[in-house]
Amino acid sequence: MIYPSQDQIVAAAQRIAFGIHHTPVLQSAFLNSSLESSLFFKCENFQKAGAFKSRGAVNAVFSLDSDEAKKGVATHSSGNHAQALARAAALRKIPAYIVMPENAPRVKVDAVKGYGGIITFCKPTLEARESMLKKVLEETGAVEVHPYNNLKVIEGQATAAMELLQELPGLDIILCPVGGGGLLSGTALAAHYFSGTTRVIACEPSGADDAYRSFKSGKLVPGTNPVTIADGLLTSLGKITFPVIREFVDDIVTVKEESIVMAMRLFFERMKIVVEPSAAVPLAAVLEQKLYVKGKKVGIILSGGNVDLNKLPWQ
Amino acid sequence: MIYPSQDQIVAAAQRIAFGIHHTPVLQSAFLNSSLESSLFFKCENFQKAGAFKSRGAVNAVFSLDSDEAKKGVATHSSGNHAQALARAAALRKIPAYIVMPENAPRVKVDAVKGYGGIITFCKPTLEARESMLKKVLEETGAVEVHPYNNLKVIEGQATAAMELLQELPGLDIILCPVGGGGLLSGTALAAHYFSGTTRVIACEPSGADDAYRSFKSGKLVPGTNPVTIADGLLTSLGKITFPVIREFVDDIVTVKEESIVMAMRLFFERMKIVVEPSAAVPLAAVLEQKLYVKGKKVGIILSGGNVDLNKLPWQ
Repeated sequence: MIYPSQDQIVAAAQRIAFGIHHTPVLQSAFLNSSLESSLFFKCENFQKAGAFKSRGAVNAVFSLDSDEAKKGVATHSSGNHAQALARAAALRKIPAYIVMPENAPRVKVDAVKGYGGIITFCKPTLEARESMLKKVLEETGAVEVHPYNNLKVIEGQATAAMELLQELPGLDIILCPVGGGGLLSGTALAAHYFSGTTRVIACEPSGADDAYRSFKSGKLVPGTNPVTIADGLLTSLGKITFPVIREFVDDIVTVKEESIVMAMRLFFERMKIVVEPSAAVPLAAVLEQKLYVKGKKVGIILSGGNVDLNKLPWQ
Repeated sequence: MIYPSQDQIVAAAQRIAFGIHHTPVLQSAFLNSSLESSLFFKCENFQKAGAFKSRGAVNAVFSLDSDEAKKGVATHSSGNHAQALARAAALRKIPAYIVMPENAPRVKVDAVKGYGGIITFCKPTLEARESMLKKVLEETGAVEVHPYNNLKVIEGQATAAMELLQELPGLDIILCPVGGGGLLSGTALAAHYFSGTTRVIACEPSGADDAYRSFKSGKLVPGTNPVTIADGLLTSLGKITFPVIREFVDDIVTVKEESIVMAMRLFFERMKIVVEPSAAVPLAAVLEQKLYVKGKKVGIILSGGNVDLNKLPWQ
């Protein structure tokens, strides 16, 4: 098992500080009183490019030496990682080659273009995305930055929980959504290094529960046809993230789609903040009483705020 | 002309501190760079009960002596003032009698009930609301707390701009939406007392431009059939607020409905915060270039975040 050290995470925090937000931690008197606990929301929805992904992307891009960097970076993604990598590359003034499925939402394509990303479209299958990325890598000599199965990306994502624990050293639990496991493995490592007493519990949609099944069985089970409105959590754990999660995550719970929608709406209605469905998954777990939070101090990583405002899920 | 003194506003800030949020000031790198200015958003959408109205309501309720207070407070309102007054009365453990039109949105009725307000319904006309309120006042002996034509309410609303100027003493301009003028007159007084060099410019929907017409003509012109999605700005200036606004406000500009919608969406999409249409009116004025902000430091009071999430105006 290879994973970032404490020093590497501290170094990542220093490396990326110029190019990311130190995001605020919010509370809701209504939720605290309803749930009889103290919930602390780490607002990565306010992060640059609208999601925690900027942390890992900036760390990966600025960890390259100048020879590696000059031919640019590349990835395949239709989501927040694509925007974050395009933005990080623009900060370093190097090209970002983004492979996107031809059916990617217009708003996501425009966002990547807005950051100067160079887009190559492909058929909307994992095989087509991977073979197109391989072709782009060969043609450009760019460095691949995988959205989560990448140590520099994990170091960067770990800095969100590191900041949260610096502000609130006594957290009993941190809740974190899980898709490919980049944010989760970083969060679990940060809790291990910077707290030692904080339990980390991952929250996953039951319609995309590969992490839950992998964690419970001890074997990496790839997702098959995941279906959830939490579009950031459709990916499966990777060879780097799974062992870290097995070792450092305390538990994984799953939630229903309707709880995700209810939780998401509570953020808009009660806290007046915009979150994407993936970010609402941990609060959904609390609403479903999948874990015991009464009287506890609970940190929740709000992964991002990039949501299609033309079709909010309660409408 | 009667209006609050500097000492009274400072005393109000101390009086209400226990029961309101000292709200954060946010910036948007995207908006600053697009508009070539520095915009500072005072987030009263994060205020208790979702709007600045909590400031004035708490100040009015906690300025009553115990004899005055014991029979409760009353108002007619279908908006944020109703919720704020019900909440403030609950903090003091006295009754709040709220007269609401029978066609008031269910969500607003529920919010007032949620804070323990005692609701009396009436026909949806101003006459019916006023005569029903008169009847409630006679029957209960409660003290009327008008939503804006009330010195204690104006003192409370002034504390938002006071906080903003304490954090950012060098603001060139403060932009503020105007309906009945409670927030605007408080803001203008705060700028006068706590800055002296900050210009205050009010922003109003052109479909509800009674304040603009009153300001320009020098005569109090009540609104007739105002129409705007900014449902917090349908009211007309009052006998207390108008003279203060004439004296201390530098200008009033009007904006189109489509600019309000565009501005509102920018808050959701770029800043990941939920605002109500009324709160988006000042940014709409900037987008319409109704005032010169290039190179300037501009404070913007975001009045509230109570919006019907089932019918957002861009949908």
